[in-house]
Amino acid sequence: MATSSRCAASIRRLSYATRARPCIQRYRPALQIRCNGSVAATTGADTEPTGPTPPKAIKFTADSYPELQRNSKFTKLTEEHVNFFKELLGSESAVIDGVTKDASEDIEPFNSDWMRKYRGQAKLVVKPGSTEDVSKILKYCNDNMLAVVPQGGNTGLVGGSVPVFDEIVINLERLNKIRSFDEVSGILVADAGVILEVADNFLAEKKHIFPLDLGAKGSCQIGGNVATNAGGLRLLRYGSLHGNVLGIEAVLPDGTIIDDLSKLRKNNTGYDIKQLFIGGEGTIGIITAISILTPRRSPAVNVAYFGLESYEKVQEAFKEAKNQLSEILSAFELMDGRSQTLLRKAKGNKLPLEQDYPFYCLIETSGSNTDHDSEKLQTFLEHVMENEIVQDGVLAQDQTQIQELWSCREGVPEVLGHWGGVYKYDLSIPISDMYDLVNDTRDRMMKAGLVGDDESHPVIEVVGYGHMGDANLHLNIPVRRYDKEVEKVLEPFVYEWVAGKNGSISAEHGLGIAKKPFIGYSRSETMIRLMKQIKNLYDPNGIMNPYKYI
Amino acid sequence: MATSSRCAASIRRLSYATRARPCIQRYRPALQIRCNGSVAATTGADTEPTGPTPPKAIKFTADSYPELQRNSKFTKLTEEHVNFFKELLGSESAVIDGVTKDASEDIEPFNSDWMRKYRGQAKLVVKPGSTEDVSKILKYCNDNMLAVVPQGGNTGLVGGSVPVFDEIVINLERLNKIRSFDEVSGILVADAGVILEVADNFLAEKKHIFPLDLGAKGSCQIGGNVATNAGGLRLLRYGSLHGNVLGIEAVLPDGTIIDDLSKLRKNNTGYDIKQLFIGGEGTIGIITAISILTPRRSPAVNVAYFGLESYEKVQEAFKEAKNQLSEILSAFELMDGRSQTLLRKAKGNKLPLEQDYPFYCLIETSGSNTDHDSEKLQTFLEHVMENEIVQDGVLAQDQTQIQELWSCREGVPEVLGHWGGVYKYDLSIPISDMYDLVNDTRDRMMKAGLVGDDESHPVIEVVGYGHMGDANLHLNIPVRRYDKEVEKVLEPFVYEWVAGKNGSISAEHGLGIAKKPFIGYSRSETMIRLMKQIKNLYDPNGIMNPYKYI
Repeated sequence: MATSSRCAASIRRLSYATRARPCIQRYRPALQIRCNGSVAATTGADTEPTGPTPPKAIKFTADSYPELQRNSKFTKLTEEHVNFFKELLGSESAVIDGVTKDASEDIEPFNSDWMRKYRGQAKLVVKPGSTEDVSKILKYCNDNMLAVVPQGGNTGLVGGSVPVFDEIVINLERLNKIRSFDEVSGILVADAGVILEVADNFLAEKKHIFPLDLGAKGSCQIGGNVATNAGGLRLLRYGSLHGNVLGIEAVLPDGTIIDDLSKLRKNNTGYDIKQLFIGGEGTIGIITAISILTPRRSPAVNVAYFGLESYEKVQEAFKEAKNQLSEILSAFELMDGRSQTLLRKAKGNKLPLEQDYPFYCLIETSGSNTDHDSEKLQTFLEHVMENEIVQDGVLAQDQTQIQELWSCREGVPEVLGHWGGVYKYDLSIPISDMYDLVNDTRDRMMKAGLVGDDESHPVIEVVGYGHMGDANLHLNIPVRRYDKEVEKVLEPFVYEWVAGKNGSISAEHGLGIAKKPFIGYSRSETMIRLMKQIKNLYDPNGIMNPYKYI
Repeated sequence: MATSSRCAASIRRLSYATRARPCIQRYRPALQIRCNGSVAATTGADTEPTGPTPPKAIKFTADSYPELQRNSKFTKLTEEHVNFFKELLGSESAVIDGVTKDASEDIEPFNSDWMRKYRGQAKLVVKPGSTEDVSKILKYCNDNMLAVVPQGGNTGLVGGSVPVFDEIVINLERLNKIRSFDEVSGILVADAGVILEVADNFLAEKKHIFPLDLGAKGSCQIGGNVATNAGGLRLLRYGSLHGNVLGIEAVLPDGTIIDDLSKLRKNNTGYDIKQLFIGGEGTIGIITAISILTPRRSPAVNVAYFGLESYEKVQEAFKEAKNQLSEILSAFELMDGRSQTLLRKAKGNKLPLEQDYPFYCLIETSGSNTDHDSEKLQTFLEHVMENEIVQDGVLAQDQTQIQELWSCREGVPEVLGHWGGVYKYDLSIPISDMYDLVNDTRDRMMKAGLVGDDESHPVIEVVGYGHMGDANLHLNIPVRRYDKEVEKVLEPFVYEWVAGKNGSISAEHGLGIAKKPFIGYSRSETMIRLMKQIKNLYDPNGIMNPYKYI
């Protein structure tokens, strides 16, 4: 279900754009773009006509991570506990009870993630309808040593939003009201469970934009976005949530409601405690609402897609885009040739450019004046073509083409799961070194004889793409099956490589369960000690999202 | 000294701007601008040819705040302590020793603030030359229960950077190296003691800009800026330090060095602890270095100055500026008529516009293309003139005029101190209500008979100006002398008024000693309790900047 919404979201994105005016004739008309033309008709990897069907049963996380043991300090759920929650939340639909009866089918979507990589064994899902509900639930759980996992849209990539053992799932989907919007200041206040796309559509009507965009926007919730400090496609332009989130309402494990829903752009009155919850991954409390600064929506949006002959040329193109497009540059995305080839293979569609190139990039501009933006873009395009920085390119002529070009970038993560599974790394690396990691990883994989076209080889390919503007590489290894041999080649190699460049082993996906063991590659012992201090301060019983994070 | 640098800084600001192209002929030529033409020749209020000389002796803070008592848990300094510091820091100039000898004259500048409002009684100033020095100093102080006050450029407005009693001043001026700059990512790493203007000039050579600008840039230090979460003139465009600061190096009271100088735009690996130090006002540790994302410097800068007939018109102008100038709008500053009249009186110069208006605003645009920016600005100007949103205006024709127009805004805070003193409030209030506070305060002051033209009246005027774009009002009451009657009219009235609008009693200046008693008007008991928890976590002995903040 999550997958389907995700895909639909991808197709709907940029629907706010006014019709982009044709302004470049000398490039191949984008009418020839056929990439992903049929995406709208698909509902994700599960329904793809070609390729093997992914395995039906997802392995329990407890089996994949045998080193993890259920912490015996946590109480096991009883009928009495369940009755408390039923009484508190009233409605039947607000409690999925797998304790006193068999509800495994109903609970399964809350136990497993959309990548089919993590699977918990929760027997109880509760859906609070108010902040007070959340407070009472957490206080009860804390008093009774019941472990919990907060869950938003469950679209995370590191297994952070599903249980490992029998933690109670606290799902935020019923907290889904937009509370207020101030048209002068652009400040939105909304419940944590509002779906990102719903928030953005609401803002579109007010000519504003949510300062965060990502492929999962049709499913993910803004509370989860903030709890995981999501990065996404607009960070280059609008900055991080640490800057844009002005306030939060959150509940601590002891039931304390933090009412810090500031609607002020500036408020220098004490420690900015809310920041600990931004990227805290639900380990010290549950965010129940946020207030966020939303910029005005740009009426003019242009998108171009280029083929380039080397990573050096991509860097040159990026430098020129920053110079010449400057304040209107809103995205600079990198896709390597292998990612685009796999996209074509999986979807059976042509790519926007006729020839193949080792690198592609997608550039988006957003501005207030169509003519000015087109002129800036034209100057830029002429420069990069005449100086042979890019080899070929297309510029979207209308909104449909804008979304078609975007799908060549946004479609990648999903398509890579097409053959069975994907090893995913989300890394920050200095731009100049960034792509070397993909080459080095591929070399290792080739030497180990793991890459090939037939079933005997677990690895399909080694692929790199990501947010060039944020020095954020997604290293992805699509595989036919998860395989210990592949993992041995990848780890700790990838983390050591990144640590050697003072990079981050998790640029935007967070730690969850997947990256918890590797935090030491990006953080010093001192920092980890200070983080544990914070965790103990707010969650001394350790009931919040255990077995994860730090 | 601080005042003089501040003034010089004001004159030098925007020196990066390329020559702004003349584009509006129908407005009065800005050549007629004479406002502050002589500012370059002055060295601040102290040397003004007219007006009374400010009082020579500054009252001790301990006398102004008789409710404050020196905390007896802190050890009194002895020769043995001083010897430790002298040995540690080696050089004579790194320790100003008023313990074993009389050094009151040398220490005075470190004991008192530039507003001449706060004065401590420190007998020792130490100037560490490295992060390790800071670590050893703090550990020693913590072990020996010696209270300290971290001090940057000492340009704060709430008495946060000077001692109250005999705290040791730890001055950061020797930590003044720029450590690195990455031209691709725009990430600067620099010591805390680097002066803001030095950092910005360094960046100007690299065609980048420090994402913070304020009147005191010639004296203030970037570590102090971060520790106080300074807002300033560029926040509207570039956002807050919570978004732009990517990493810090800081020292905890126990000597622990937090090495979190990330050079990554994204790093989702654990709690973002550095955020607690941004705006922590030196109460949990000392920032010794920062890494910060710096945007590219805009080659095209335009500045316009308008007269408007009402605050409603100012709001309309702001709305139009956001609409039409959009991505190139870099400042929208408000000055009321009284602020400009006082500026003229104090400086003896004419204002940019021939007639007087109840409101003025200053708009700055920064963009990458001069022609595009001028066209946007022209469209905007025509709209606001034709629709009588503004009554009159000038547009700077060159760099000199740009800085002359800016001085009509930046000169205000300093000029208001011309007659003796200023009661300063730095408030966040929803834009629509913002100016009502100035009117309401003035009404109260008039009713109390405190405002007048002669010496028998303590109050000169009630003035409002500030950062319209951030809903940040500076309510200033210039006075001939500080007066209990005036204070009674002002407080708690101002704070109650702001609390009634869910505003902030300190938008950007911080808490320090001045706002500490009033935090309850902007923060809930829960928030204050959580803040105290953080303070106790990092500084259990309470040696860091005591008597202040929360």
